[in-house]
Amino acid sequence: MNPMNPMNPTNAMNPMNASDQMDQTDQMDETDHLYAVILAGGSGTRFWPWSRELYPKQMLALLGPNSLFQETLLRIQPAIPPQRTLIVTNERHAFDLKAQATSIGPGYRFLSEPEMKNTAPALGLAALHLQREDPEAIMAVMPADHLVRNPSRFLGLLQVATEPARRGFLVTFGIKPTRPETGFGYLKAGCLLPGLAASPDDKVLQVERFVEKPDRESAQGYLASGHFYWNSGIFVWKASTILKEIQAHLPHLYQSLKEIEPFWGTPEEKEAVANAYASVEPISIDYGVMEKSSAVALIEADIGWHDVGSWSALDEVCPKDASGNIRSGNLLDLGSQNSILLAGSRILATVGLQEMVVVDTEDATLICPKDQTQQVKQVAEEIKRRQLEQGIVHPTVHRPWGHYTVLEKGEGYKIKKIVVDPGARLSLQLHRHRSEHWVVLSGFGRVKIEGRSFELHPHQSTFIPILAKHRLENPGPAPLHIIEAQIGDYTEEDDIERFDDQYGR
Amino acid sequence: MNPMNPMNPTNAMNPMNASDQMDQTDQMDETDHLYAVILAGGSGTRFWPWSRELYPKQMLALLGPNSLFQETLLRIQPAIPPQRTLIVTNERHAFDLKAQATSIGPGYRFLSEPEMKNTAPALGLAALHLQREDPEAIMAVMPADHLVRNPSRFLGLLQVATEPARRGFLVTFGIKPTRPETGFGYLKAGCLLPGLAASPDDKVLQVERFVEKPDRESAQGYLASGHFYWNSGIFVWKASTILKEIQAHLPHLYQSLKEIEPFWGTPEEKEAVANAYASVEPISIDYGVMEKSSAVALIEADIGWHDVGSWSALDEVCPKDASGNIRSGNLLDLGSQNSILLAGSRILATVGLQEMVVVDTEDATLICPKDQTQQVKQVAEEIKRRQLEQGIVHPTVHRPWGHYTVLEKGEGYKIKKIVVDPGARLSLQLHRHRSEHWVVLSGFGRVKIEGRSFELHPHQSTFIPILAKHRLENPGPAPLHIIEAQIGDYTEEDDIERFDDQYGR
Repeated sequence: MNPMNPMNPTNAMNPMNASDQMDQTDQMDETDHLYAVILAGGSGTRFWPWSRELYPKQMLALLGPNSLFQETLLRIQPAIPPQRTLIVTNERHAFDLKAQATSIGPGYRFLSEPEMKNTAPALGLAALHLQREDPEAIMAVMPADHLVRNPSRFLGLLQVATEPARRGFLVTFGIKPTRPETGFGYLKAGCLLPGLAASPDDKVLQVERFVEKPDRESAQGYLASGHFYWNSGIFVWKASTILKEIQAHLPHLYQSLKEIEPFWGTPEEKEAVANAYASVEPISIDYGVMEKSSAVALIEADIGWHDVGSWSALDEVCPKDASGNIRSGNLLDLGSQNSILLAGSRILATVGLQEMVVVDTEDATLICPKDQTQQVKQVAEEIKRRQLEQGIVHPTVHRPWGHYTVLEKGEGYKIKKIVVDPGARLSLQLHRHRSEHWVVLSGFGRVKIEGRSFELHPHQSTFIPILAKHRLENPGPAPLHIIEAQIGDYTEEDDIERFDDQYGR
Repeated sequence: MNPMNPMNPTNAMNPMNASDQMDQTDQMDETDHLYAVILAGGSGTRFWPWSRELYPKQMLALLGPNSLFQETLLRIQPAIPPQRTLIVTNERHAFDLKAQATSIGPGYRFLSEPEMKNTAPALGLAALHLQREDPEAIMAVMPADHLVRNPSRFLGLLQVATEPARRGFLVTFGIKPTRPETGFGYLKAGCLLPGLAASPDDKVLQVERFVEKPDRESAQGYLASGHFYWNSGIFVWKASTILKEIQAHLPHLYQSLKEIEPFWGTPEEKEAVANAYASVEPISIDYGVMEKSSAVALIEADIGWHDVGSWSALDEVCPKDASGNIRSGNLLDLGSQNSILLAGSRILATVGLQEMVVVDTEDATLICPKDQTQQVKQVAEEIKRRQLEQGIVHPTVHRPWGHYTVLEKGEGYKIKKIVVDPGARLSLQLHRHRSEHWVVLSGFGRVKIEGRSFELHPHQSTFIPILAKHRLENPGPAPLHIIEAQIGDYTEEDDIERFDDQYGR
């Protein structure tokens, strides 16, 4: 738990993982055909109010200084370099995910879907993309928002999985169930597949069948039988294999994907993908392919996997105080027990709570008994339905150049506090519907307005008229803090015309 | 419940009460010696986070558009005009209470204590004050933070009480207990006092003894006996009587008060009061006088009295929804029951709560089971101990000229949104430790800086250097909204030197 600012994952690279990478990359030079495909398109609502439509679960630093997405990148990095790591997401989330990836290291590749159509279209598109570049490509597919407590075992099993994948299997990572969970899909395993595991510790099994989320009684039976595994959503297969399987089981999807092929790398690519996606049915790879294929293999994945599926799941993965509480932020508690009490910078005062979840952010507070956290999804959906800002973004938004906080928004104006990192520079831009006032609180800024350049120091201010091209830069060694008062009939983020941007926006 | 802004009691006079006043004042011309003494010095912590050190319970609009203090003024107004209503408070609260009183009507009188020393010194000081002005003065003493559901019965009994008061009794309003409450003092009533009640409906009784807050068992006995009453803290007596009783039972206090007398109305009065108070022991009138006096009478006060002593007390006085919840503000609830859910302008999302109190304000949130609301006092005390802003004031502060909200405060700066009412004018002032930037968001302002006058319109801004005398005025017909960025090494409210102020500050 990152106590004070869970919404701001660190920009520091994890040094331990970095050195792991050096050691293991040498050993793995032979696996040049292995690509990571990270599914980062989810827009989960179960972690509201931390998660927002534009800031879903994978971007949250739920369990440490890095976001779950960043942890996923760090985990795979020792085996697969950024140049062979493809992050599949959608256009709304790409910008922030790119910023998070860049803070881990350079070179990560992104594939943006025009719409979210579940995992089968996303993986079909990724497979097409990789096969075109490397006909022998093997894809290690993984969600961006899960926890793996034993990353070296994970990397070891990834190696194990490449052999059956090379032979044409769709390899899934199966998790030994520890409770009769009704929220996951299950796989029934059959016999050991001979000759595929390098060591007796590694089990590669046939899969007899896939089972959708079961009822409680069935789940208890599966748990007792010892033959069932949870479906982790981690897969290893050749790009050519999954495309053949899609052709067989999802011919319409295959057809749509093939229509994109002539436009790969042309200026029409984006439009072709959008056209193809428009007609594609949303369907998961599990339901669309895995349940129907006869070539599925399972690796027993004792990797410390956890899907961290709701607020109450933090109980299983976070440290607790002596009273069984998970605590963070500016909390003042008297006698609560077994509760999840996540404060932010505001004061959160709790008295004698039992088995409760309380999450406080700058602009919203959630209070819910632990055994009802599945209802948080409905809360988030209701907030979206009411078109409230609290469903979409946080008041504090991180940008490549620093961050800003919306302090106040009203009819005809918006007040922001802007922090520009040392050396950073915003884009050259103009606004059609608002003027802006900047007042420097600390640090100093270099300002350009319609070609005129000057410096702004604390106690100084400047005015940017509507339509004036302007740019703000922090040439100093300390963060630049300014207050921006926007005045105009429309003060949303999309009234911005960019002319030059060092961050390629 | 004033749903959207409980911290901002209305400025509108209650028209019904105004007409009541006209009718009844005519009947009561004979009671020219009757004075109201309203004890408004309390600094309750039990309604945190609504109540703050500078904004105690009596200032809160807990039960409607007016604060409990304003309701107290409106209740007494038909019987006693503002010119004979003396509000006893302390210097820290006087400013805001005066503003609340002024919004009810002109002419209210204030007596500020230099320190809070419980009720005996406050009432002694008030008695001295009134006796000097009118030797026949009768004081109707009442707390400013109680609820009286039947105000006409209250006024009727006030009339009844004046007769025994004239004859030298200390008359208390006793409330028939409805539950074995352990949080109140009790009075044991004796025989009816003959010839003092105008009607058989009105019971004026001897008091055999006062009982401090009893244990549960005793309270149950008192309730069953039918002879015990709750001590409401409403008293009627002659100023001369209570002074004689203070002289008899609290001679040191009497001596200290007498030392003030030579300075009444002189420039040294304030200093004399402060000197006298410095040596006074804090003690309540109940413990110091009432328990010891043999001249106490009780009026059975069937006036719909309620002390509204904690958040859970709202259950007894506020309307509820179909699930038994008291709700207000920007609340999104799924299935809570029998809870007190008070949101503000932020989003408060609650799921499946039972018997809980949740209070959300701009800068703090409280969550507490109903049966533990007595612990809120400890929370508020801990917040004061930590010297947090959330113990002292709200981010939004009301002033005679409008209001402001602190949007952000940091090392070396403070950002305020200021709203100036049409026609209002702030004092001519300067600051020794900060410069200020003003940016007009809407409306227009007239600004004076070091003798230079000009107008500021939306999109315009101005700068006020450290030590520059300045003044802001709203000459327009609409509210003036400005953003103020204060920059300096010290940005607290007390860095203000006033030269001219239409509100007499």
